[in-house]
Amino acid sequence: MSIPTIDRSALPRFQQLLLSKAMPPNSLGRLSELALDLAMIQPSPLENLHLLIFAADHGVVEEGVTHSPVEITYQQCLNFASGGGACSLFASQADAVLSIIDVAVKHTFLPSDGVVDEKVAWGSRNFLTAPALDRQSCLKAMDAGKRNVVHAHTRGCDVIAFGEMGVGNTTSASSVAAALTGLPVAALTGKGSGLSDAELVHKISVIEQALALHPERGPMDVLCNLGGYEMASILGGMLQAAELGLPILLDGYIVSCAALLAVRLEPALVDYLIACHRSAMQGHQAVLDAIGCKAPLLDLSMQLGEGTGALAAWPLVRLASHLLFDMTSFEEGCVTDSTALLKRLGVV
Amino acid sequence: MSIPTIDRSALPRFQQLLLSKAMPPNSLGRLSELALDLAMIQPSPLENLHLLIFAADHGVVEEGVTHSPVEITYQQCLNFASGGGACSLFASQADAVLSIIDVAVKHTFLPSDGVVDEKVAWGSRNFLTAPALDRQSCLKAMDAGKRNVVHAHTRGCDVIAFGEMGVGNTTSASSVAAALTGLPVAALTGKGSGLSDAELVHKISVIEQALALHPERGPMDVLCNLGGYEMASILGGMLQAAELGLPILLDGYIVSCAALLAVRLEPALVDYLIACHRSAMQGHQAVLDAIGCKAPLLDLSMQLGEGTGALAAWPLVRLASHLLFDMTSFEEGCVTDSTALLKRLGVV
Repeated sequence: MSIPTIDRSALPRFQQLLLSKAMPPNSLGRLSELALDLAMIQPSPLENLHLLIFAADHGVVEEGVTHSPVEITYQQCLNFASGGGACSLFASQADAVLSIIDVAVKHTFLPSDGVVDEKVAWGSRNFLTAPALDRQSCLKAMDAGKRNVVHAHTRGCDVIAFGEMGVGNTTSASSVAAALTGLPVAALTGKGSGLSDAELVHKISVIEQALALHPERGPMDVLCNLGGYEMASILGGMLQAAELGLPILLDGYIVSCAALLAVRLEPALVDYLIACHRSAMQGHQAVLDAIGCKAPLLDLSMQLGEGTGALAAWPLVRLASHLLFDMTSFEEGCVTDSTALLKRLGVV
Repeated sequence: MSIPTIDRSALPRFQQLLLSKAMPPNSLGRLSELALDLAMIQPSPLENLHLLIFAADHGVVEEGVTHSPVEITYQQCLNFASGGGACSLFASQADAVLSIIDVAVKHTFLPSDGVVDEKVAWGSRNFLTAPALDRQSCLKAMDAGKRNVVHAHTRGCDVIAFGEMGVGNTTSASSVAAALTGLPVAALTGKGSGLSDAELVHKISVIEQALALHPERGPMDVLCNLGGYEMASILGGMLQAAELGLPILLDGYIVSCAALLAVRLEPALVDYLIACHRSAMQGHQAVLDAIGCKAPLLDLSMQLGEGTGALAAWPLVRLASHLLFDMTSFEEGCVTDSTALLKRLGVV
């Protein structure tokens, strides 16, 4: 794998281009900054987003860390693949292509279900009793991520996002985040799909036991001991996307934990990540900080996953990607550039 | 004018509908809240946004409150009307219809320019020497706002936004905001399109003189003494839009000051206003608070005006408006509703 280093030498030229646009300097704030970041990854407007949702089950649900029955993972995969669920609605509203990919769901899908078959395991193991992922299967899941990114790229996408589905995956993600950041588990663990205060205390205790049981802190060890197969696929997919020069729209908590693993493996990845939203999940901002992301574009107290945060932000990203290339300049619009004028006169 | 009162009796039904959707309760945060607010205004998905940009010049520019030469107002109108400028790019990216309307620009447009002719004056007067608006012309500008909203509605829009163009209009808007809220001028006055610190002090002093010169604090007096013709049109347009039952996407500082005037005249208007973004303009949040708006959807340090904040948020609003009506339920998606199950079992 080799991720191209972003060429920052183009920045002054893009900054100059931005200043030529028919508006006062700095009047588009975060969108202008995003326009520059995107142009350095790919100097053309973005049009085609592909969202890859990786689904997997989690052995740690045996410990009672969630109210959601495990069947919801496969049921939602079927629902998404047939055009239902929030992700399908968000994708159709945002003109994004959506793929639902089974890497480790505890269910046998039929070819007619529309779920992409990349199954490497029948769920992960309970990480209080064993490493969560089998190392060979983990590598296969990473390869599945890479393969699906290449496929999306071949089909014409110029920007990519990742989503996840998997009952129990917030427990796994919080464990990964705690292992990688060293922050207190309580600061990184939320109520998922609706735990009580007492149940949250139990979830934190399960994670603390897991961290003690698996003391290794290298990214691949953390992934295999505490992660999930969907995180492995997302990690692999992100590395592949950056290698192809694709901007990556970063979704919520689980996807960000996968990104943190990926950045620990390949620090150059960070320049390809666009933080789309701040999830309501406890600890998401801490994970974004650990990755080294800029402030996320949206802060709407969403915490659904499924790539919905990335899809919600996609119209803003697309818009920003057009600023440098499709907005009229002062000259083209026959508008007086008062800032340039005052600079020439020595006033500012 | 009579604005229909929002019927809150439908809220429990819409809340129930939201809970039936195939996702954990409260997982879409602010978007879910917006979905409910929108459904109470108009119980169907929103599809067609029309942005009306009203343009006017401001006599107070004589006091040296801005660097921008006054010609920029008409130049930008021409630029926008021919498909240039940020607003045109944003509108085309968001599939919104855009109209550029001259209410008081110091320029004679040709019919072929594509600028809608609603001219009531050749700019406002310098409010340090006289009331800014002639009362009869102000009423005409309000009527122009109403007429253009009716026209947009007839053409099929189901949601509306307002924007503005006018060199000097932040000085007018800050004066209006200070008069209506009683807050210190410095808390409501920013550097507009790039003043120095000393120039900002001068701008504040001009506004303080104006407030002393025009002590009346009723909304129509404030509008006529300190406002602009574009604010009059926006105010009239908002009242008309609410009367027609249209949700109104609230843009940045100037449009929000017009909304504050409108809400002081017709308090029922507030339920039709969707705060789209928090501008980087000093005092915008204070004006949103005075109106009684919920937290804005975006906070991207934008401060361009032209309706760009409303256009940037429109994809989120459209998405939210679809949640209740186009997302699959647990039942339709064949997904276990674990919350309902646990409630039946008495667990939660």
